Amino acid sequence: MGEVIRVTVWNEGRHEKTMEECKAVYPDGMHTVIAGFLSAEPDIEAGTATLDEPDHGLTDDVLAATDVLTWWGHMAHHEVRDEIVDKVHARILDGMGLLCFHSAHYSKIFRKLVGASASLRWREVGEKERLWVVQPGHPIVQGVGDYIELPHTEMYGEFFDVPQPDNLIFVSWFAGGEVFRSGLCYYRGRGKVFYFRPGHETFPIFKNPQIQRVIINAVRWAAAPGSEAALGAGNVVPLEKLET
Amino acid sequence: MGEVIRVTVWNEGRHEKTMEECKAVYPDGMHTVIAGFLSAEPDIEAGTATLDEPDHGLTDDVLAATDVLTWWGHMAHHEVRDEIVDKVHARILDGMGLLCFHSAHYSKIFRKLVGASASLRWREVGEKERLWVVQPGHPIVQGVGDYIELPHTEMYGEFFDVPQPDNLIFVSWFAGGEVFRSGLCYYRGRGKVFYFRPGHETFPIFKNPQIQRVIINAVRWAAAPGSEAALGAGNVVPLEKLET
Amino acid sequence: MGEVIRVTVWNEGRHEKTMEECKAVYPDGMHTVIAGFLSAEPDIEAGTATLDEPDHGLTDDVLAATDVLTWWGHMAHHEVRDEIVDKVHARILDGMGLLCFHSAHYSKIFRKLVGASASLRWREVGEKERLWVVQPGHPIVQGVGDYIELPHTEMYGEFFDVPQPDNLIFVSWFAGGEVFRSGLCYYRGRGKVFYFRPGHETFPIFKNPQIQRVIINAVRWAAAPGSEAALGAGNVVPLEKLET
Amino acid sequence: MGEVIRVTVWNEGRHEKTMEECKAVYPDGMHTVIAGFLSAEPDIEAGTATLDEPDHGLTDDVLAATDVLTWWGHMAHHEVRDEIVDKVHARILDGMGLLCFHSAHYSKIFRKLVGASASLRWREVGEKERLWVVQPGHPIVQGVGDYIELPHTEMYGEFFDVPQPDNLIFVSWFAGGEVFRSGLCYYRGRGKVFYFRPGHETFPIFKNPQIQRVIINAVRWAAAPGSEAALGAGNVVPLEKLET
Repeated sequence: MGEVIRVTVWNEGRHEKTMEECKAVYPDGMHTVIAGFLSAEPDIEAGTATLDEPDHGLTDDVLAATDVLTWWGHMAHHEVRDEIVDKVHARILDGMGLLCFHSAHYSKIFRKLVGASASLRWREVGEKERLWVVQPGHPIVQGVGDYIELPHTEMYGEFFDVPQPDNLIFVSWFAGGEVFRSGLCYYRGRGKVFYFRPGHETFPIFKNPQIQRVIINAVRWAAAPGSEAALGAGNVVPLEKLET
Repeated sequence: MGEVIRVTVWNEGRHEKTMEECKAVYPDGMHTVIAGFLSAEPDIEAGTATLDEPDHGLTDDVLAATDVLTWWGHMAHHEVRDEIVDKVHARILDGMGLLCFHSAHYSKIFRKLVGASASLRWREVGEKERLWVVQPGHPIVQGVGDYIELPHTEMYGEFFDVPQPDNLIFVSWFAGGEVFRSGLCYYRGRGKVFYFRPGHETFPIFKNPQIQRVIINAVRWAAAPGSEAALGAGNVVPLEKLET
Repeated sequence: MGEVIRVTVWNEGRHEKTMEECKAVYPDGMHTVIAGFLSAEPDIEAGTATLDEPDHGLTDDVLAATDVLTWWGHMAHHEVRDEIVDKVHARILDGMGLLCFHSAHYSKIFRKLVGASASLRWREVGEKERLWVVQPGHPIVQGVGDYIELPHTEMYGEFFDVPQPDNLIFVSWFAGGEVFRSGLCYYRGRGKVFYFRPGHETFPIFKNPQIQRVIINAVRWAAAPGSEAALGAGNVVPLEKLET
Repeated sequence: MGEVIRVTVWNEGRHEKTMEECKAVYPDGMHTVIAGFLSAEPDIEAGTATLDEPDHGLTDDVLAATDVLTWWGHMAHHEVRDEIVDKVHARILDGMGLLCFHSAHYSKIFRKLVGASASLRWREVGEKERLWVVQPGHPIVQGVGDYIELPHTEMYGEFFDVPQPDNLIFVSWFAGGEVFRSGLCYYRGRGKVFYFRPGHETFPIFKNPQIQRVIINAVRWAAAPGSEAALGAGNVVPLEKLET
C-alpha cells in the first residue's frame, strides 16, 4: 500500500545469444521486456539478473532487496549453481515471492519447491492455446475475461507431475488435443510461488497485453506481506503450566 | 488501489438489546464497533445493517453497493428470511466478499455456502484460546506474529463439519483440551469467503487490536477484484471448427 | 474388506420414457445399465430407485441400507422433493457416499453440497472429449491410462462454478475449444462425494468399459469407512482441568 | 483386493544402540515392532531395512519389491546417502507409498518431497497430546473416534513449514499450549505420502493400539494402485489434426 514492489527478473539469457529467431523477438533479452512492462506500473520497480553474471546476478544483496523474483530458463538449468538455488529457496521461505514462467517448470528452484519431477508432455509446432480461468475470484485474474487465447505457442500437456496447487487459476486447452494446469499458486514457508505456463523464447508471448496483465497481478499477489511467524522456532518452553 | 472498499457490517443485534452483559460491552451494538475500526482505515468505508431493519437492512441497493459484507448472528439465525439469504448468496457468487464471525458458522448463509452442517463442539466458560498461524504467507495474517492469544473466550472444537478450506490460515488451541480450524478461506463463484472464529457477544473480542488487524486484512483480501469470467454462460457455439 | 458394498442407483428416468433416442440406447433406463455393471463386481450389490416411485424410491430404509448412492437427473431436478434432498444430505454427512454423473451437476443435492451455482457452459453437438488424468495416484483412476477418449458427447466447459475439490482427478479437453474439471472428489461430514462429468442420456457413455471402470473405482472409494467422529457434539465439558 | 501389500519398514536404528531408555522400550529396534504389528494383518507382509546395512538396506531389488515404505530417522538424517534418497524419491513418483513418522519430518526424503524446510517448534518434557480427527471421511481414520490421546510425548508445534496437504487428517493439541497439523496426505507423481506426527524413540508410541490402527490404515491407503499415466511422456505428436 503505497510502497514500491522490488522485482528482480531473472533470465537464463542464452537463447537470445545463440538463436536467431529468439534474437529477432527479444533483441535485448526476454528479461528486458519483462522488466520493462513491470516497471511501467507505478508501484513496481524491476531490475534484471542473468545466468552469466557473477553469482548469476543473484548476490545476497540482490536477494535481500528483492520482493518478487521472476524466473525463465530452458537450455542451461544445470548450469545454475546449487548454492545459489539454495539461497533463493531460503529467501522464498523467508517471504520473497517467485514467479516461474514456461520452461522454468524444469528449473532447479521450481523442482526443489514442488518436490516432484515437474515432467510433462510437450510439442513445438506453434499450435493454439486457450487458457481458461477456473478460479475467477483470485486477484491474479483481475481484468481477465473467460480465457486468454494464444494463437501460436508450444504445447505442454498433462500429466504435469506437480503437487495439487493451493489455488488452481488456469487450465489450458491445446489444439492438438491436450490440456494443462497452467496457472498454479503455491505457498512455501512465508513465501508465495506462481507457476505460469506461457512464455516461449520465440513466440512473442511476453508482449501479449493479457499475459502482461496476469504477470503484473501475480507480482502484486506474490509481494503481499504475510505474518512474521517464525520458521524453525526450535526448542521452546511451555506456554502453559504443565502438571508435574 | 486508491479506491475505497465499501463494507456493510451486518449484525443480528438482539443480544445487545436483551442481555445486560452484552449491552455492557457493546452499548451501541457489535456492528457499531466493527464498522468503527474499519472506517478508521483510509481505504475502507463501513456502513451497518441489522436483522430488525426492513429486509434486514440488506436491500438490493445496499447489496449492489457492498464490496464486502461481514456477518454476525447467533440467537435468531432462523429469523433471517430465505429470500434475503438467496440474494446475499447470489451477490457473493457475483463477486462480493463475505466475512463470517464466530457463531455465524450456523448462519443460513454460511451453511448454504459450505454445503455441510457446520456443526461443532462448544463450551462457554471463558477459557483461554491461542490462534496459531499455519499459513504465514497469506495476506490475512499481515502484522500477526506466531499466534494471537485471547485470555477468555468461548471454546469451539473439532470436528468442525465444513469442507477443507482453499486456504487454512489459523488453528486454535483451547485450555480445555480442544483444537479448532479457526481461520478459513473459501472461493465461491467470483466471490471470496473468510470464516473467523473469534467474536463473542460478551467477551470484548472485537476490541482486541490483533483481531481488528486480521479483520481489516480480511476485508482487503475479500474485496480484491478477480476475473469477469461468466457464471452460467449457458449454451455456446464452438470456438473451433468441428469435423462434420 | 470382504464385505459387500450396497449401492443404490438413482435415476430421474424421464428421458427414457419420453425420448426415442434415449429409449433406443437405454430401453430399461440408465439405472438398469449402471446397476448391471456394478452388480457384476464381486464386492458390489446394486439396487435402483427412480423419481416416480414413492419418495423417489429413497425411503428411510433404503437410505439406511445404502453405502453409496449414484445420481442421474436432468429434466426434472425441480420435481425432487426438498425433504428427500435433506434426508439424502443428512445421510451423506453421516457417511454415505454419493456419485453424481453429468447433468446431476444441477441436481438439488449436488448444489446443496457444493454451495455454489454449479453453472457451466455447454453444447450438444456430439463432439469429442478426452478426459486427462491429473492425479494418477488416486484409486479412482486405477486401471486408467493417460486419458479416456469419448468420440461423441455433449460439451461442458469452464468456468464450472464449484469449489476447488479436495482432489482433482480428471480435466477434459473438448474438440470445440473448451476444458472442464471433470472428475472431482469432495469430503462432506463423514461422507465422500465424486462428481464425474460423463454420462449423457443418448450417447452410450455408461456402456463404455473405461467409464464403467472409473465408476466402479469411485464406488469403492466412496464406500470406504472413515472415523466415527461425532458430528454436532454440542455442549461439552472440558477434557482438561481449567484454572479458576 | 486379495493381494498382499509388501511393506519395508525403514529405521535409522541408532538410538536403540546408543540410548538406554530407547533400548528399554525397543530392545530389537522400532522397526521390529512396526513390522510386527503390520505383518499380523492378513493382507500385509512387512520386512525391515536400517541405516547401517549396505545401501541402508534399500537396494534396487528391495525398492522394486516394496509397495509402501515407512521411515523413521532422527539423529543421523545426514548419513543417509543422497543417491539412495534420489532412488527412493523416484520410486515414490513411480507409485510406491511412503509413511514418515515423527522426527522423519527432517529426513532428506521428506524435505525433498515437500519442498520446504519442514521446520517446527518442539519440546521434550513428556506432556499430553490429543490428535483430533478433522477429516472423518478419510480411510486413514477408520476405527478412530473423535481423537487419540497420548499421555506422554514430545511436543511438535506450528508453524510447521510444509505445504498445505492434499488432505489434512489430524490436528494435535498439546498441554503446553501448542497445536500441530499431525496427519498429512500428499500426492506426488503416481505415489502417495502420509506424514504422521507420533512415534517417539522412548515413549512407547508404536505400541499404542490406536496409533497402530492409523498406521495400518495408512499402509492400505498408500498401497492402493492408481493410474498408469506416464510421467515424463516427453515430445509427443498431436492427437488431433492441426491446421497448417
